[in-house]
Amino acid sequence: MLAITILYPRTADSTFDMDYYTATHMPMFAEGLGESCQGWGAASVADGPYMAMGWAMVDSRENFDAAMAEHGAAVMGDVPNYTNVMPELLVGEVAGGS
Amino acid sequence: MLAITILYPRTADSTFDMDYYTATHMPMFAEGLGESCQGWGAASVADGPYMAMGWAMVDSRENFDAAMAEHGAAVMGDVPNYTNVMPELLVGEVAGGS
Repeated sequence: MLAITILYPRTADSTFDMDYYTATHMPMFAEGLGESCQGWGAASVADGPYMAMGWAMVDSRENFDAAMAEHGAAVMGDVPNYTNVMPELLVGEVAGGS
Repeated sequence: MLAITILYPRTADSTFDMDYYTATHMPMFAEGLGESCQGWGAASVADGPYMAMGWAMVDSRENFDAAMAEHGAAVMGDVPNYTNVMPELLVGEVAGGS
């Protein structure tokens, strides 16, 4: 299982439209992942170097890579619709949990 | 709901014991959170500025703050048992998900 985490850096003039992110962008991302998406979420972060984050659980790296090859350009093309910063992507291999 | 994310920076000589993290440290963290913990996970990250991450879903900021006041020092004191870097903490307010 992959834990995909997307971090949005806080800068002096950074902006983030959380309504658009949760209502439009993340559902688009999840739809691109299709049945391989095992859940997603989004959160605002009040303090520190990041202002917002998103995440999605994906059943395998193969399915994630295939979905990004097909839908990645459209997903990335939507980023300027909700923020003026570049997201940082963490592709985590889940090692444990409860 | 809070999404607590803990990021471990990758450095030239950074180390991380994922077995200890998943078997001992994160269960200690979750036990400190008690019933307010709605799930936790851990993942290795192969590339980029972070080498590993953990997360926990917590039902409220009040309960998180209370748990950290009581157990935070013990949790932080355990960090050198599995890594030689300082974790970065993101306290996210969940805004959406599916």
